[in-house]
Formats: sequence, C-alpha cells, structure tokens
Amino acid sequence: MSEHIDPIEEQYKLLHQRLKNEQLQEFRNELLDLHLYEQGLFYVSLDEEERQQIYTYLSPKEMGDIFDVLEEETEEMPEYLEEMRPQYVSDMLSEMYTDNAVDILKQLDKTEIAKYLSLMNHEDVKEIKALLHYEDETAGAIMTTEYVSIVANQTIRSAMYLLKTEALVAETIYYVFVVDDFNHLVGVISLRDLIVHDEDELIFDVMNERVISVKVGDEQSDVARMIKDYDFLAIPVTDYDDHLLGIVTVDDIIDVIDEEATSDYSGLAGVDVDEASEHPIKAASKRLPWLITLLFLGMSTATLIGQYEALVSEASVLAVFISLITGTAGNAGTQSLAVAVRRLAVQNEKGNNFFRMILSELLTGLVTGAITGLTIFIIVGIWKHNFMLGFVIGMAMLCAITVANLAGSLIPMLMDKLGFDPAVASGPFITTLSDLTSVLIYFNIASLFMRYFIS
Amino acid sequence: MSEHIDPIEEQYKLLHQRLKNEQLQEFRNELLDLHLYEQGLFYVSLDEEERQQIYTYLSPKEMGDIFDVLEEETEEMPEYLEEMRPQYVSDMLSEMYTDNAVDILKQLDKTEIAKYLSLMNHEDVKEIKALLHYEDETAGAIMTTEYVSIVANQTIRSAMYLLKTEALVAETIYYVFVVDDFNHLVGVISLRDLIVHDEDELIFDVMNERVISVKVGDEQSDVARMIKDYDFLAIPVTDYDDHLLGIVTVDDIIDVIDEEATSDYSGLAGVDVDEASEHPIKAASKRLPWLITLLFLGMSTATLIGQYEALVSEASVLAVFISLITGTAGNAGTQSLAVAVRRLAVQNEKGNNFFRMILSELLTGLVTGAITGLTIFIIVGIWKHNFMLGFVIGMAMLCAITVANLAGSLIPMLMDKLGFDPAVASGPFITTLSDLTSVLIYFNIASLFMRYFIS
Repeated sequence: MSEHIDPIEEQYKLLHQRLKNEQLQEFRNELLDLHLYEQGLFYVSLDEEERQQIYTYLSPKEMGDIFDVLEEETEEMPEYLEEMRPQYVSDMLSEMYTDNAVDILKQLDKTEIAKYLSLMNHEDVKEIKALLHYEDETAGAIMTTEYVSIVANQTIRSAMYLLKTEALVAETIYYVFVVDDFNHLVGVISLRDLIVHDEDELIFDVMNERVISVKVGDEQSDVARMIKDYDFLAIPVTDYDDHLLGIVTVDDIIDVIDEEATSDYSGLAGVDVDEASEHPIKAASKRLPWLITLLFLGMSTATLIGQYEALVSEASVLAVFISLITGTAGNAGTQSLAVAVRRLAVQNEKGNNFFRMILSELLTGLVTGAITGLTIFIIVGIWKHNFMLGFVIGMAMLCAITVANLAGSLIPMLMDKLGFDPAVASGPFITTLSDLTSVLIYFNIASLFMRYFIS
Repeated sequence: MSEHIDPIEEQYKLLHQRLKNEQLQEFRNELLDLHLYEQGLFYVSLDEEERQQIYTYLSPKEMGDIFDVLEEETEEMPEYLEEMRPQYVSDMLSEMYTDNAVDILKQLDKTEIAKYLSLMNHEDVKEIKALLHYEDETAGAIMTTEYVSIVANQTIRSAMYLLKTEALVAETIYYVFVVDDFNHLVGVISLRDLIVHDEDELIFDVMNERVISVKVGDEQSDVARMIKDYDFLAIPVTDYDDHLLGIVTVDDIIDVIDEEATSDYSGLAGVDVDEASEHPIKAASKRLPWLITLLFLGMSTATLIGQYEALVSEASVLAVFISLITGTAGNAGTQSLAVAVRRLAVQNEKGNNFFRMILSELLTGLVTGAITGLTIFIIVGIWKHNFMLGFVIGMAMLCAITVANLAGSLIPMLMDKLGFDPAVASGPFITTLSDLTSVLIYFNIASLFMRYFIS
C-alpha cells in the first residue's frame, strides 16, 4: 500500500519543517486537515521538545480528539501526560469520549488520577468516576456514556433536531436509544430508519421494541460476540434493572477482539507476543521467566529419567526413542489444548457439556494414539528387526498421546471452571508437563516388557 | 447472559408450534419481528421438512435478509441451497448484498454457480460476476457494491433525498462517497456531517477531500488494519486508476480479524481449531496428518540418537538430559516463532528490516540461552557433583536455544518473503525440528568433552 503512505510521509516532513520554523498557523491548518489517526502518528513520531511545542499550538480539545483515536496504540501514554501541564491534561480528558479518557486514566497510579480529577468540573468527574470503578474486561469498562437517548412520545422531526445538536458530542448518532421517564431502555431506532420515515411520525410507532442489550457486568468477549453476530454498530449497556447506562461501539469491539486473540495466541506460545521493542535484552527478560520455570518442571522429567538410568545403561536403545515419544505426545497435547481454549472462547455457557467435551477428547486421544502407535510399531519393528521393541514404543506412544490429549483439554477447562482465563494454560506448559507423563509411561512399559525385547 | 437468551428460547418453541399447526400468518408475524440473526438461528435449528415449509412461508427477499446476517456462521450453506427450488435460490441471491451472495456462491462448484446465474436478471449477474473473479482474501473479494455515491455539485438537501431512496438497498448509508463524472473517487462525507450542515450548502463545500481508500487488490488483513486504526465504519475500494468499485464495511472486517486470528492460532498449534464437530473420529482425522508427518520428522531425530547409542551405553547419564534440552529449546523456539508471526502480521512493509529482526532474535536467543545454560550448569553441577557434565549440558542448552530461536523466527520470515503465509510454520513443526538440531548439538558437545565428565 505504498501509494497511500508516501504522500503522508511528505506531509509529515512538511509539518516538521513548520514546527521548526514556528509557523503556527500553517502548521495548524495542515495538521488539522489530516485524519485524526494520521495526526496521532505524527504526534508519536516527535521528540519531547517538539511535543512541548505541540501542546502550545493545539487546544486540549484538539489534542483530545487525537488521543481518542490513538489511545489503544501507545504504551507511552503516562509519559505523554507527565510532560503536559496538569490543567491541560484535565481539560483534554474532559473533552475526550469518557470511555477513552478512562482507558488512559487506568494506566496511571491513584495519586495521578486524583490530581487530574481535582482539576475537572464536577459533571465530568462524575461521569469518569462512574466508569472507572467497573471491573476490567466487562461491558461497563469498555462502554461510553456519550450516546443519544430520547423519549418515545415525540415526532421524528424533533428527534432529528436533537440529533443535530448531539452530533458534535455523541460517539455515535447512528442509533438512538429510547427510554421511559425512569431511564429504562424501551426501544431503539437507527438513523437509517429515522431518515426513511415521515418526519411527522411518532418515535413510538417506528422504534424497535425488541432491543438487544447487554448487562454492565457482562464479559467484554460476550459483548464482542453479540455485536459480531448481530452486525451491530453499537449495543446499549444497562444495569440489572434495565436502566440505560451507556453504549459499546463497534470500534471498541474490534480492539477487544484483537486483544483477546493476541492474548490467546500469547498464551499458547508462552510469551507476550506484543513485545513492544525489539531490544534483545528486554525481549529475553520477558521470555526468561517462563523458560526458567519450565526448566525446573523439565528437571523433574530429568530426575525421573535418572531413576531409570540403570534400565537405560542396560538397554541403551531406549534412549533413542525418548524424544520421539515426548515430542509426539507434546504435539498432540498442543493440538488438544488449542482446540479446547478456542471452544471455551466460542461457547459461553460454562461447563454444561464439560464431561461430553472431556469424553470426546479422550476418544480423540485414543484414536490418534492408536493410529500413531500402530505406525511407530511397524516402523520400529522393521527398522530394528525387533517387533517386541516396536510394541513397547507403540504402546508407550498410545498411552502418552492419550494422556497428553486429556491434559491439553482438561487443564484449560478446569481453569475456566475455577474462574481463570483458560488461555493462561500455555502450550509450552502442556508440552513440558506431557514430557513428564510420557517419560513415566515409557519407562514403566519398557521395564514391564524388558526381558522380551532385549536380545 | 442467560437473561437475554431465555425469552428467545421460549419464542423459538412457539415458532415451532406455529409451523406444526401451519399458522402461516402468525408464524410470519412473529418470526419477522425477531432480529435477523435470531431468525437465522431459528432457521438453522430446523430439520429439512420444517425448512421446506419455511421456503413456502418466506419470500426470497425475506430469506435473503436472513442469509445476509447468517452467511459466515454456517458450513451447511450448499446443502440449504440444494433443497430449495433453483429459481428461489436465484431470487434470494439477487436480493442479498452482493458480497454476501458471492461468499455463498464461492462455496459451490462451477455448474451450480452457472445454474443459479442463468436464472437471474442481467444486471444482478453482472454485479455478482464482477465480484466473483477477485482473488480470495483481497479487498475486492470482501467488498460490496451496494454503496451510495453522488456528484459534488449538488446541495445537501438533494443528497439527503437520494439517501432516503437508497436507504432500503445500500449496505451502509452512513458514508456517502463523492465521485466525478468518470466515477473517480474525489471525496467522502458522513451522514453525521450531512445532518449537521445546512441543507442549502453544496456537497463540494462540506465533503472531505482527503478520502482514505484501498486498492481492489490489497490484502484483506491490510484493509482490516486500516478500518481498525482509523475507526472507520466502511472504507471505499478503488481500481488502480481511482475509480470507485465498492466498499468494505466494518461488519465484514470483524469477520476478517476473527478469521485471521483463528488461522494464526491454528497454525501455532498445528491443528484447525475450528473443528466443526466434536466427533472423535472426525477430530482425529483432522489432527492425524500433522501428527504423522511430524512423527516421521521425529524419526530422523530418533535415527540420529541411534548413531550415538554407543555413546549413551557408555555414559547413560546423557539420556537423562535429552528431554530437558529438546524440551527447553522447543519452548524457546515456540516463543520466538509466535513473536515473529505476530510481528509479520502487524508490520506490513515486508522484509525491509529482515536482517535487523534476525540479528535481534539471534541476540535474544544468545541471552536467554546463556542464562538458561548457566542455570542448568549450576543445577547439574551440584546435583550430579559433576561440573564438567554441567558444563556439557549448559553449553548444549545455550547452543540449542540459540538455534531454536533463530529457526523460530527465520522460518516464518522466509515463508513470508517467499509469499507464503508465515502462520503455516506451526509450533509443533518448530519444536520437532528443534528436537533434531538440539540432539545433534547435545551429542556432539558430549562426545567432544566425553573423557572429562565420565568418572
């Protein structure tokens, strides 16, 4: 897409020049002409001195518009706020959509939050505080309060008039939510429908009473799934007595879906894949904790093999197949883990088919184990001219794969049942655990049949 | 969210009853009152006989509306079409948004497609054919042609009038695209802006001329990223001479993001995680190809260890650490693989920092390898009272981790450079490959220092 990006690079260079020459008015005209996301990319490309200059060139409102689009992109947010005057920060946060302002505040410590809130007007503080206290990753934590709501006994004309005034502050005007006198959510109407109908019709007659909403405590992944399934642009959020509290818009949902996918993926790999920098020392420091933890788990496997050292020194051929059995069982465990984590993410009714899933995974493990075991039995039998050895390897393979499959699905399901995120059960953890069980199975079967396969 | 779902279950039961009693009018009223997605869920819950009844109760247009929302959810689409009269299918596809109709047609074979197209009117055939030939996973393949476009030299009032008529067929009316007399894309204006401005103003004066668009051949993941970054509800698609061809809407982008995340995740696990059924035989048949392929790769590792059987029988203690070294290197390789795949997905400028990424991953591997190696050197030295053995294990660990790290990032990057999807390089493949290199490294270092650590 270089065609789209090049003109922007040119523009950025020009803007840099304007800053250097202190051409305030030209700079403002040209910057504010860009899309907000592009303004944001320019902003983050600056050094601190240039950013300081920007804070004097742009109003808190203009800066807030940029941060509204940028917020999820940058980890340096606390540093940016640090370098602004506190009053500027407070004004900027007040001008932003409340959900985005709250996302930024959540990255700060409590004294910082208190400082900025103390400089805001009462109304804004109230709105922000209302959102701040919702638990992370719930509908409440990602909703915004800038929605348009009306009562039902008015005409479309008067609703359109209201929309015109709200259009400047509301996060979306494409849905209008209808409430009763007690702020209970009773209907919804899209701007599309408002436009199609006659201006003299009553909202009551054209609104959709079957409004789909989520509760403020619902998990954000459930909210995301509903918006995705229903193809909504926004969904209203209510408390448990159906009072309208806010809305979640589709742009926030895209971020949620991306975030959840990244976290599932990171879990499977046992690493935070969003390593911000490519700096080797930093990257290593993020990966080492898992590696060292698993090293100790791996040590138990080594210790276990140590118990069978006499067996190995008697039949050194056993050493040949250690990595084949642990590796294959690990692969099977990773597959079943990934399937289980995904299935848990897609099905939201927790646990009602727990035993069916476990049984199904057990059978899948037995089938894959049997076929893989049979294959290796034939290969080893022919290769080593020793079908008894082949039988031992094949049996060990069958059992190790079945156990690994079971562990791969059981562990995330148990974590889910206990209220943990099942994606935390990482692939490396499952493979390292399955190394242990595989070795145990392997050497036990081997000792059992020892006298038959040693020539 | 059981509170939301229960009333729907009740409703579904009632609808079943209406079908059984052949209460056509009541059934229609109650079904069509539901959200399209809910109508879809009801439809897919039916058996074939009931579905046949539905086809006589609902018009092709009504059925098409349902399929518009349902299309990405179901794999049984070809079977559903099979059981309808061909003319009904053609009418239904004509009524659907073109992009969704095309998505469905793409699941059919060529003679089926020809049959349905032959029963459509010329105009619809032209639109569908135009979309059918775009390559999969490009902007062209996911765009729709039901957008609203206008010319610039008219008032907002006349544009609003056009919108009212288009509102019934356009996929979104929330953006209006401005074109010149040759259908070149020259601007965009949101419905929000149309509403805010005075009705007598000219489109030309209020439209945004800096319209962000994508090319018809751009990859769908790039289109998704742009919609996500810019917080758009839709993005226009042009040919390489800036003629407007269609738009991609945010609901399709959510599906793309979900799809790409699932495919990355499946790749990392070496399994298609969207196993449609839980049937163990089917699940096993999907997982076995990878397992058996990797079993053969694992056999090379076993063969390699076989070469060192004499070494092992002389120093059986070496067997103790095989799985520790292969396991830890495999974990490190999985981490570096996941980071590389994600980085490739996020950075779209291909290859320009290839060597920097490889160098950075090499250094990360050396650092993690050195620290892990040092740890195991101390543990083994103390545990086995043999620091020379500890040195051998530690050195092997350092080298094996470095090589696994390098392979984990090099392989997906090479695949990307060669034009393949880097996510195809699966975690199990990397760990099995790293088993081979780890064992090679381990036994070579061990033979080198053999005489020093054997007591």
